[in-house]
Amino acid sequence: MMLGAAMKVTGSKPLAHIPVKGDYCIHDWDRLARFMEVPWTMPENFPIATLAASRAFYWLDDDDPALAKRFTLAAYDTYFGQGRDITDPETVAEIAEPLGIDREALLAAIQDPVIKQRLKDETTAAIDAGVFGSPFFIVDGEQFWGADRLWMIKRWLRSGGW
Amino acid sequence: MMLGAAMKVTGSKPLAHIPVKGDYCIHDWDRLARFMEVPWTMPENFPIATLAASRAFYWLDDDDPALAKRFTLAAYDTYFGQGRDITDPETVAEIAEPLGIDREALLAAIQDPVIKQRLKDETTAAIDAGVFGSPFFIVDGEQFWGADRLWMIKRWLRSGGW
Repeated sequence: MMLGAAMKVTGSKPLAHIPVKGDYCIHDWDRLARFMEVPWTMPENFPIATLAASRAFYWLDDDDPALAKRFTLAAYDTYFGQGRDITDPETVAEIAEPLGIDREALLAAIQDPVIKQRLKDETTAAIDAGVFGSPFFIVDGEQFWGADRLWMIKRWLRSGGW
Repeated sequence: MMLGAAMKVTGSKPLAHIPVKGDYCIHDWDRLARFMEVPWTMPENFPIATLAASRAFYWLDDDDPALAKRFTLAAYDTYFGQGRDITDPETVAEIAEPLGIDREALLAAIQDPVIKQRLKDETTAAIDAGVFGSPFFIVDGEQFWGADRLWMIKRWLRSGGW
C-alpha cells in the first residue's frame, strides 16, 4: 500500500523529517543494519513515492507471487541496501530485468489504469483494515506494527495468542 | 524529565491521542503487559502532567537514590498498574507514605522553588542531550529510545558496541 496515504490518517510525518527524532532514527537504522549484517545505505531521497515499484508488484503478483516477492526484495535492496532512488519507472524496469521480467511489459503495466486502480484499492483496503505504518502484519485479525514486533508475531503464531 | 516538554521539540502528540495509531498502541500495551505478566490498567487520564511525582523524585534522589527508585516504581505501579491518576500531590504523598516518606515534608518539597527549578533544569538538560521520548537511555554517548531497544542496550554493554 502507499504509506503516504496511510500516514495521512494519523497525521504522521515521515520519521526522517521530524526534528531530533529523525536524526536519531537514521542513526538507529544504521546501527540496526550493522548489527543484523544487512546491506544498508540511507537513501538521499527519503521517503519517496514508490508508485512504480508498487504497481509492478501487483502486476507480477497476479501471475507469479514468488517472482513478485523476488522483485520486491530486489527493489528494497536497491533502495535501502544501495541507497538508490527507485522512483523512476526506468529504474524499476532495470531492477526487474535480471529476474527475467520483460522491460516493456513492465513499463506498460505501470501505466495501466487497471493496475493503477488496483494499487489504490489495496491502499484503501489496508487503511480500512487499520494499517497506519509499515511494516504492518495482521494475523487472524490481530494487528502488529513494526519490525520491532516480529518477535511477538512469532510467539503469537506459536502459542495461538494470549 | 517532563515528557511533554521533550515532545514539543519533535512536534509529537501523545500516542494515545493519535487517530487509529492510538487505539493500536493501547491494544499493544495491554498485549505486552499480558505477555510480560506485569500489572497493567490503561489509565483513564492519559497522559497526565507528572510534575508532583517528578519533583518528589528529585527531592528524594538527592538524599537517598535507592528510596527514590522504590518511590518511582510505586508511582509507576499506581499509575500504569492500577490505572490511578497520580497528578494530585496528595496522591503522590499517599504513594510515598508506605515507604516511610514523611507526608508533610514531601508536600512541602513539591512546592519548593528549588525543587521546581531542579525539574526544569533536568528537563532542559535532557532535551539538550537529545532526549525526545521515554524511556530514553544514553550509554557512553550512544542514544537508545524505547523499551523496544532494551535488548540492544544489553548487547551494546556486553560487546562494547558495534
